[in-house]
Amino acid sequence: MVRALTTIAVDGIAEIRRGDEIAEHIAVAAERQGTPLLHGDCVVVTQKIVSKAEGRIVALDPHDPDAKRRLIDDESVRIVRRRGDLVISETRHGFVCANAGIDLSNVDAGTAALLPLDADRSAKHIRDAIRARVGVEVAVVVSDTFGRPWRMGLTDVAIGVSGIAAVLDLRDTPDATGRILQVTEVAIADEVAGAAELVMGKSHGIPAAIVRGLDPAWFRESSVRELVRPPAEDLFR
Amino acid sequence: MVRALTTIAVDGIAEIRRGDEIAEHIAVAAERQGTPLLHGDCVVVTQKIVSKAEGRIVALDPHDPDAKRRLIDDESVRIVRRRGDLVISETRHGFVCANAGIDLSNVDAGTAALLPLDADRSAKHIRDAIRARVGVEVAVVVSDTFGRPWRMGLTDVAIGVSGIAAVLDLRDTPDATGRILQVTEVAIADEVAGAAELVMGKSHGIPAAIVRGLDPAWFRESSVRELVRPPAEDLFR
Repeated sequence: MVRALTTIAVDGIAEIRRGDEIAEHIAVAAERQGTPLLHGDCVVVTQKIVSKAEGRIVALDPHDPDAKRRLIDDESVRIVRRRGDLVISETRHGFVCANAGIDLSNVDAGTAALLPLDADRSAKHIRDAIRARVGVEVAVVVSDTFGRPWRMGLTDVAIGVSGIAAVLDLRDTPDATGRILQVTEVAIADEVAGAAELVMGKSHGIPAAIVRGLDPAWFRESSVRELVRPPAEDLFR
Repeated sequence: MVRALTTIAVDGIAEIRRGDEIAEHIAVAAERQGTPLLHGDCVVVTQKIVSKAEGRIVALDPHDPDAKRRLIDDESVRIVRRRGDLVISETRHGFVCANAGIDLSNVDAGTAALLPLDADRSAKHIRDAIRARVGVEVAVVVSDTFGRPWRMGLTDVAIGVSGIAAVLDLRDTPDATGRILQVTEVAIADEVAGAAELVMGKSHGIPAAIVRGLDPAWFRESSVRELVRPPAEDLFR
């Protein structure tokens, strides 16, 4: 059997507002475009619509240069680096990213989207609501767009997961030559988020995708905390 | 039209030896499994088989603890961090990664695989050979597995590209609300490499995948240098 993965953009999702049930929007849009959700799918949802549904939108005066800085400080537990306008900080979730994950694009002018307070919980909520509405068991990844210190360009990564391993532990797994693998932990939730980004696209405003065909063995309870490197192991904080 | 991407593992590729034409192996295996290469595909090839084909395999005595260290020093232009056995260094290509990208898994015991000298050239060679053999124009990404300073687990990223943008520049692109996008550069080659990893898998020893359905606008001449952050812009080196 050929191992294959299909990644499908879920288009036609209406503007999400505070209190909206995202699962309902995704299920309806997926059905409407002829790709209904199936058992074993992984649904990837961008941080932006999760933040909108959860009311994590705040006013931000674009003409007040200090306002954004104060907001970043509020959303950070520690500033890691600051150079000019660029701030790399650690959020209360343990994510190290630019501007504490605060986002100004694809939101109304004069507002900013903050990260969900607990995106694992957001993912679980969407997963439970899909099960209740459609009757299928899916995994959910909440994604956001982060930079990397030594590589140009941004990639989408997971900031919340439910029902799928965030990190796959391959310790004690032999490689094709029978030796124990040198690479032992694969951040599959980040790779899933990145794959979804390729069909959602930053400029299309598509806020969700279906990743179909992932190894069923990867579906388990987990937390995005698997992806957060403990500060004690961190050489660069 | 539904935007969708299909990622297909290319299974059944024989053990690659020095001087082998990787394109030939991939084209034959893809045909044999019923998924022949098509115009517009992006073929992802792991560093390991590229290194094998290019003879970048060296002897490494597993019982000599200093041998690996010397090899890493040889392959590095600068050591960025060292803690115990872990070395983060900058390679001559500008990649910052563990152990200078030297790999001990899926190679014969007593040997190690070094990074290709110029994986853009490797990618172009494979792309040209596929065009010559199969008559289709594909893009090629050479992938490797790197860690990240603040996130656990590894992901596959691009170390060489041909025929596809490494970084997509969305500057001056309006978002769905008409505002200019805050996120302007997307590392699509890294996301393509990560998507391919999800079907290749570390323990399966599958060294190539086809990513089908990428936006045709992304196919252009490029270089992995687009992904290398210039040291002057780097806050963490």
